[in-house]
Amino acid sequence: MALKKKPTTGMRDILPREMAIREYVLALIRETYSSYGFNQIETPCVEPIGNLTGGHGGENEKLIFKILKRGEKLRLEEAKEEADLVDGGLRFDLTVPLVRYYANNSAELPSPFKAMQLGNVWRADRPQRGRFRQFMQCDIDILGEAANLAEIELILAMTTLLGKLDFKNFTIRINDRRILKGIAKYCGFPEDAYDDVFIVLDKMDKIGADGVREELLAAGYAADAVEKCMGIFGEDDASAIDGETSNSGDDSSTNSGTGAFAGSGAVGLDRLKALAETLGDSLEEGVADNLIEIIEVAAESRNAEFRILFDPTLVRGMSYYTGPIFEIAMDEYGGSVGGGGRYDTMVGRFLGTDTPAVGFSIGFERISMLLMERGYEIPSTGDKVAFLIEKKCTADQVRETITKANELRASGASVSVMRMKKNKKFQKDQLIEQGFTDIQEVFAN
Amino acid sequence: MALKKKPTTGMRDILPREMAIREYVLALIRETYSSYGFNQIETPCVEPIGNLTGGHGGENEKLIFKILKRGEKLRLEEAKEEADLVDGGLRFDLTVPLVRYYANNSAELPSPFKAMQLGNVWRADRPQRGRFRQFMQCDIDILGEAANLAEIELILAMTTLLGKLDFKNFTIRINDRRILKGIAKYCGFPEDAYDDVFIVLDKMDKIGADGVREELLAAGYAADAVEKCMGIFGEDDASAIDGETSNSGDDSSTNSGTGAFAGSGAVGLDRLKALAETLGDSLEEGVADNLIEIIEVAAESRNAEFRILFDPTLVRGMSYYTGPIFEIAMDEYGGSVGGGGRYDTMVGRFLGTDTPAVGFSIGFERISMLLMERGYEIPSTGDKVAFLIEKKCTADQVRETITKANELRASGASVSVMRMKKNKKFQKDQLIEQGFTDIQEVFAN
Repeated sequence: MALKKKPTTGMRDILPREMAIREYVLALIRETYSSYGFNQIETPCVEPIGNLTGGHGGENEKLIFKILKRGEKLRLEEAKEEADLVDGGLRFDLTVPLVRYYANNSAELPSPFKAMQLGNVWRADRPQRGRFRQFMQCDIDILGEAANLAEIELILAMTTLLGKLDFKNFTIRINDRRILKGIAKYCGFPEDAYDDVFIVLDKMDKIGADGVREELLAAGYAADAVEKCMGIFGEDDASAIDGETSNSGDDSSTNSGTGAFAGSGAVGLDRLKALAETLGDSLEEGVADNLIEIIEVAAESRNAEFRILFDPTLVRGMSYYTGPIFEIAMDEYGGSVGGGGRYDTMVGRFLGTDTPAVGFSIGFERISMLLMERGYEIPSTGDKVAFLIEKKCTADQVRETITKANELRASGASVSVMRMKKNKKFQKDQLIEQGFTDIQEVFAN
Repeated sequence: MALKKKPTTGMRDILPREMAIREYVLALIRETYSSYGFNQIETPCVEPIGNLTGGHGGENEKLIFKILKRGEKLRLEEAKEEADLVDGGLRFDLTVPLVRYYANNSAELPSPFKAMQLGNVWRADRPQRGRFRQFMQCDIDILGEAANLAEIELILAMTTLLGKLDFKNFTIRINDRRILKGIAKYCGFPEDAYDDVFIVLDKMDKIGADGVREELLAAGYAADAVEKCMGIFGEDDASAIDGETSNSGDDSSTNSGTGAFAGSGAVGLDRLKALAETLGDSLEEGVADNLIEIIEVAAESRNAEFRILFDPTLVRGMSYYTGPIFEIAMDEYGGSVGGGGRYDTMVGRFLGTDTPAVGFSIGFERISMLLMERGYEIPSTGDKVAFLIEKKCTADQVRETITKANELRASGASVSVMRMKKNKKFQKDQLIEQGFTDIQEVFAN
């Protein structure tokens, strides 16, 4: 039969060099997030299919790898549609499983519960550069903390991690779903169209303010609502994440370019205050003050060089967000390398009673790719020793060599004992290329 | 719609306490196996379905979680059988994917290639205590090393790991597929029935020598072949792994009970030598000497308290094994907690040319379960501090507290900053129960 050498379409084999970098990053994630009090947990990769198609996954629900029913449960003759054939699916994110986990185990979990998840997720996306159908996500979530301490702790944990990986001058874009709602209400969009309006607003950095205006008008929204909305945003918003600040008249750091990161780190507070004033009663009380506190405290307590930017065009795809939302933008990488937000009503869907919740997911694959491209060298972990044993050596010599190898291993070295090849020079060259620092030859007595 | 709180049937959520032990064991595995020169790699969890149903998986091929085709490729109306619906499956072990990986990437891999894989596998087995449908496997394999150094290094790496986890007095059962073949040939079983005979022999410790005899006769094998075979094994073989040695007249360690572990560690060499003499030309040349060398060198170079026992009843299920096979038996756990062997012809199925290969897989779930049951305490990793912030505190106080927290984090502590609850006493009791060693309260000025 035909055995395939290539991995499944859109998925990939990871070679040792890349794996070493990934494992280094994962170890740093565990260490850093543990220092912020997060506890690692795990859920199965396969979720009951109903949980994945329950409407929390947005576009991802179209990309599920579905698992065929087994044994008697599979009734192919009677099956009328796909749903009759499947009972599970590979998770497309770690948030839906976390919420199920919390609902299932809440009696045994502390409050607040600080969860760390490092795990693969699967999406049957069109394969493209840097996008894979199996990829790792690294999430931290705090469940049961209503105060904005949760947002602040998440932002600091994540940015501390990026700082340890030598990332600099990145931007945390931050907004609040309730501000978006306030804008939509203030402009007079119909309430059932809010989410659709947000989706168009989200394209600001791709199609510009004019593009957004056109698209909103084309969708049939009232011209005065659209104009009122465009009055809030400007052409500048289209380039807000390019490292230049778009906030003229700002009190904190109005310099353009990298200078923007040298100031207090908080950008756009004046704009936020002005927007809150404009929106007036359309904005839920306390939302602006809450966001200002998050921005100020996170910027002033930061352990890494980044700025935190109020960006009213930030939407984030998932409709389950209920409060502050955030995203990491990096100059080196066009798009987002992570993001999250508050989702206070999602646990209620499983548990019956709502539980405040905030999460942050970093784009582990993108971050690893950036490190690979940068030629990132992981700190050395000791000697790498090879013993080459000539074929004629006696069992006693093998034993002696292994004893020596074990002593070196106990003292922290990585040691391989192998047969000496006929082409010894080639063998040694290969070993040096693999990073061996010490090659010892054992000849027959 | 109905959201399910319970995880997928037969799979489970892992709570923080267990996860901490698992992560500790995984870190120890990475460290120990790295010290033996193994490089971590990864393959996708989803394999092309043809690779999983190619006959290398034995019984596991009946337990595959299959993935439904997507989009246009799924033609439900035209589908006549299950195979028309699926294009992938969740891997049931790490060996088949490793061999595909090696075939796919051999140009970029060193020789010998020492691979370490830590990953989940899936089997739709009947759920039962301690057996899950998703479970982690930890494999080490050496590809491209024909010499028995490969077997010795694998056994030492794995037993060193078990020693670090305080496992003592376990047994490595070892045999060679070619010895089994030699026995079958010597007894005169028909060549195409060898594998079936081995499957019956494998039941020795469950049904005893009499049971094996009956089953072989019932299967219709010639009475003289069966008697010749039973002459090689004895009633003792049925209890060989119970910690008592079954090898009277042995030169190395004939004591019963734990005393068996105090000797040289090599058990059954006399029996192996006698068996080789009995089998004569039926046994491939060099096989016995090779196995003796593995047993002697591994026993004398060992870093942990175990014995290595020649056990001619050891079969191992997979038909792909071609040489030495081994299994770990522990008193604390009835069955095997790991095993492996040499499979020199499997790479050839993918690559066209054979590559010598040996692998060892430990039963990570069973080992973690034994540690949990034993109440294993992982070494302390520093202070666990909580700051409880009263609700009335100002943003400045929050900032000051977070600055303090960050200083403690930088010095190695795990710190959580959270809102003080109304029932402070209950909150503090909960935190102490979670292992917090230092709880600091921050009141409004």
